[in-house]
Amino acid sequence: MDFVTRLNAAWSKNNSLLCVGLDSDVSKLPRHLMDSKYALLEFNKQIIDATAHAVCAFKPQIAFYSAVRAEEQLETTIEYIHNKYPDILVILDAKRGDVGNTAKLYAVEAFERYKADAVTVNPFLGLDSLQPFLERKDKGVIILTRTSNPGAKDFQDIESNGKTLYQTIAHKAATQWNTNSNVMLVVGATYPKELKEVRALTGDMPFLVPGIGAQGGDVEAAVTNGVDSRGTGMIINSSRAILYASSGEDFAKAAGIEAEATNEEINRYRGVLHGAAK
Amino acid sequence: MDFVTRLNAAWSKNNSLLCVGLDSDVSKLPRHLMDSKYALLEFNKQIIDATAHAVCAFKPQIAFYSAVRAEEQLETTIEYIHNKYPDILVILDAKRGDVGNTAKLYAVEAFERYKADAVTVNPFLGLDSLQPFLERKDKGVIILTRTSNPGAKDFQDIESNGKTLYQTIAHKAATQWNTNSNVMLVVGATYPKELKEVRALTGDMPFLVPGIGAQGGDVEAAVTNGVDSRGTGMIINSSRAILYASSGEDFAKAAGIEAEATNEEINRYRGVLHGAAK
Repeated sequence: MDFVTRLNAAWSKNNSLLCVGLDSDVSKLPRHLMDSKYALLEFNKQIIDATAHAVCAFKPQIAFYSAVRAEEQLETTIEYIHNKYPDILVILDAKRGDVGNTAKLYAVEAFERYKADAVTVNPFLGLDSLQPFLERKDKGVIILTRTSNPGAKDFQDIESNGKTLYQTIAHKAATQWNTNSNVMLVVGATYPKELKEVRALTGDMPFLVPGIGAQGGDVEAAVTNGVDSRGTGMIINSSRAILYASSGEDFAKAAGIEAEATNEEINRYRGVLHGAAK
Repeated sequence: MDFVTRLNAAWSKNNSLLCVGLDSDVSKLPRHLMDSKYALLEFNKQIIDATAHAVCAFKPQIAFYSAVRAEEQLETTIEYIHNKYPDILVILDAKRGDVGNTAKLYAVEAFERYKADAVTVNPFLGLDSLQPFLERKDKGVIILTRTSNPGAKDFQDIESNGKTLYQTIAHKAATQWNTNSNVMLVVGATYPKELKEVRALTGDMPFLVPGIGAQGGDVEAAVTNGVDSRGTGMIINSSRAILYASSGEDFAKAAGIEAEATNEEINRYRGVLHGAAK
């Protein structure tokens, strides 16, 4: 199935633009799980089951697994989502970027090994570093454009010929790279002005929007500046605010409540612009 | 031990600036190794033993291992180098780059899990994405600046206020980020003009220079444009031309001969500029 078809189905499934980021940190797990041999997997399964009805996607951040030699738990987490919630997307947050010869192997890592539906990539090395991802019509390629962190301004805001670097990336993505309708852009919720600019440049191109929740991005500003003409066009990620809503045995229940509330908040602002969110 | 001390010792050990890139590709291994359960590790050990006397560093590219679920063979390869050739550096080529919270985990991956002496990082996300690496005085932080691939020009050459993006990165690295004397820059041998420019901007800052061998970079141009005032200042990488010098049972012997010849060629051009390479 084409990625764009999968994406539209995922948004519709639960009437949700919300993504739960599985930045599952061994040092932050509830105490009663810590001694389990597969603590990350056990934690993820419970988070997934408690939030799957309120999301369009899950986004495991690979560093949280590779730092602790837990690749197998990441594989099993993704398999669990695909089997139990086949309409929900799995985005592997890996921010890969390398020369063509190596980029091919990173595409194998994301799509064959981990079986992700989409992967985040870093555009700094240019088109040949993106090509092995772009040619996969069945997979999403989510290109870093204006990230949510303080250092985003260091290079992404550099101006040349009246355009910032992030605007140049967005423009190329929209006009040259999206021949398979599988490109998305990362634009941080922490910078609503930039979100609005990138939306203006790219029509209805979908965005992955990190930065609400623990990073402090404002949901109303993110949604009203980022939605496309149909009231969708965004996958809005929250990680820590949902994963660690409670540090006790009720962590999954608390995560479910937080995910529902966040989804409702997002939909409230979609509704303002586009009537009843369908 | 400080990284800069380790680096100088590594250059001196074999009078070599050469690095062998362990881009060990399961599909390109000699036939007699292919059926081994630990084929990558077996291949690497033989390449390492055959070339260690002619190099200053080995550089495994992590994608070649993660694409095929071979993290354990990568760990064991690095351990093998540290135990048997303790003066030779291990550079993990991972090109990581993420927001501060996640960058910390990538630093754990590179330095604690894999025990690399240095890691390549992507500066696109700015200072907070580099900080967890920069603060490790005992480890090298090798920042992508002007890469060796065709797409390098797409964004790295963008000009602002009379400076290209790669010049801006080089300038910040030299003037702001190198307080622990542990920063290196990636500048491709395929672009000798850019190599010369970055050398002029950064004094004696060390470079990692990929692109000779299979990528076609000219050794003479790379060395004469890249060496520092002491006739060192570069780690020059060759991967495929050495690893696959022969596809037969004599692959390791052929790799050793190719590594020696490449090191001699590099030293010839160092010598032209700086008298006898010491």
